[in-house]
Amino acid sequence: MVKRLIEEIIKKNAPIVAGLDPVLGYVPEHILKEAFEKYGETLEGAAEAVFQFNKGIIDAIYDLVPAVKPQIAMYEQFGIPGIATFKKTVDYCKEKGLIVIADAKRGDIGSTSAAYATAHLGKVQVGSKSYSAFDADFVTVNPYLGSDGINPFIDVCKKEDKGIFVLVKTSNPSSGEFQDKVFEGRPLYELVAEKVAEWGSQCMDGTYSNVGCVIGATYPEMGKALRKIMPDNYILVPGYGAQGGTAKDLAGYFNDDGLGAIVNSSRGIIAAYKQEKYSKYGQENYAEASRQAVLDMKEDINSVL
Amino acid sequence: MVKRLIEEIIKKNAPIVAGLDPVLGYVPEHILKEAFEKYGETLEGAAEAVFQFNKGIIDAIYDLVPAVKPQIAMYEQFGIPGIATFKKTVDYCKEKGLIVIADAKRGDIGSTSAAYATAHLGKVQVGSKSYSAFDADFVTVNPYLGSDGINPFIDVCKKEDKGIFVLVKTSNPSSGEFQDKVFEGRPLYELVAEKVAEWGSQCMDGTYSNVGCVIGATYPEMGKALRKIMPDNYILVPGYGAQGGTAKDLAGYFNDDGLGAIVNSSRGIIAAYKQEKYSKYGQENYAEASRQAVLDMKEDINSVL
Repeated sequence: MVKRLIEEIIKKNAPIVAGLDPVLGYVPEHILKEAFEKYGETLEGAAEAVFQFNKGIIDAIYDLVPAVKPQIAMYEQFGIPGIATFKKTVDYCKEKGLIVIADAKRGDIGSTSAAYATAHLGKVQVGSKSYSAFDADFVTVNPYLGSDGINPFIDVCKKEDKGIFVLVKTSNPSSGEFQDKVFEGRPLYELVAEKVAEWGSQCMDGTYSNVGCVIGATYPEMGKALRKIMPDNYILVPGYGAQGGTAKDLAGYFNDDGLGAIVNSSRGIIAAYKQEKYSKYGQENYAEASRQAVLDMKEDINSVL
Repeated sequence: MVKRLIEEIIKKNAPIVAGLDPVLGYVPEHILKEAFEKYGETLEGAAEAVFQFNKGIIDAIYDLVPAVKPQIAMYEQFGIPGIATFKKTVDYCKEKGLIVIADAKRGDIGSTSAAYATAHLGKVQVGSKSYSAFDADFVTVNPYLGSDGINPFIDVCKKEDKGIFVLVKTSNPSSGEFQDKVFEGRPLYELVAEKVAEWGSQCMDGTYSNVGCVIGATYPEMGKALRKIMPDNYILVPGYGAQGGTAKDLAGYFNDDGLGAIVNSSRGIIAAYKQEKYSKYGQENYAEASRQAVLDMKEDINSVL
């Protein structure tokens, strides 16, 4: 699957992921109004509003970006209708040729991790039939439980040609509380990175592995060091834009081949119309604002490569 | 919420949680047959089978146990119908007076963690109305992202009188890969435990905190040491029974007041009829086998307190 991701990155000349992390506060009034008229101020109404909001953005940017990253938490909060919108969003993105990274940060052990892997990447057996529950292309995974948590995902990745991104160093201010603790001279995030390289070596897909990692844009020095520990693992980089990471911070996340990293922006793309810079578009044309934000981000990131 | 948990533990004289982690392989043939006749070999059929299986067990044990712990991964693998069964299971357990611990091991940062907390414990605002998406009483949380990941859960716990259990030392063999790494003479799980004590102090509910932790039954020496670091935090203990933890391993997880820990068994209860010991019940009477397994577990755990 990482091979397909790379093909799409090269084709679109954009090592960019659009984070589909909608909150109702981002949804323009005309979309909210229509959804609430149809379903009332209910979970169904909220889920419909979120789907129509997503659809507008996807239609406006699918030719520019290789991948999207829906954050499942934002859908889970609207219960079953929310999860149904998550699934509809995944399906719609795939129809448009986009690669879908389910940002779910799942992680458990043994048969439970296997169930998560099945849910998000694999197929579940029901009697004589099998079904894909959510069918994303990649899913983000939490490493705290060790190999017992990761191996079941790798099994599904091998079987279905899918991928994972394992959290190594997250973009948030308190990520250092545990991730930066130093063990025999080396921080925990480096130990996790070594494991990612090891897990990834079982799961190569061309020159890169289907096991990638997450390193926040807000820690560029660490990004550079980790790049060397995991030369074959794609880095999914959150924290660009709204969280403070800039393009010049990101050069060290890429390999000399110009590949190896994909940079996410969520709010910066999906709520672009709320920024001063794109305010001329207005609520009605929120999706065009998102398109312009992608074009600007693409130029910004490519300027350092 | 932990106060209510303690009341129920005392009333039922059972520091026990029944883990509702169904797989289709546990569901007796007569239930599967009926569900597939109604819905076909579909995700809906699987979800219906799982719900009827759960219902049988809940009806048989709700007077014996204070709490249940549905493992959401097992439901997620059946997609939206699976999640609907998760929700129906939570609701049915609450109708029966049971406390529900959603085993979801969620964890992210900022607004994303807030969305997970809202989804599983809180209420989401939709226009002028608010709704509970899943409405469990407790949820399990992964600490890898630090305080930024935990604080949004604590905010919801305070507002709604709910609780969390933070992973400290998990029961699986590879849990040591990261959790046991020693930083300045102290293993990571102890550093996490100290943070749990700190987070928990903001969120007391009587003599215990609404912030608890997870420590596997398979590491009794660590359990004893961690008990001292977190005297006010309830310990949710997985790994008893099927994973190899025994009652005598568990004494050190409890405080001198006989409280402070609640022991989970999943397979050991819900698939009891598959064990040699309970085989006389047969598939048809699987729920009675589960009831007997709970009675036996209760006696076993209470024998060491």
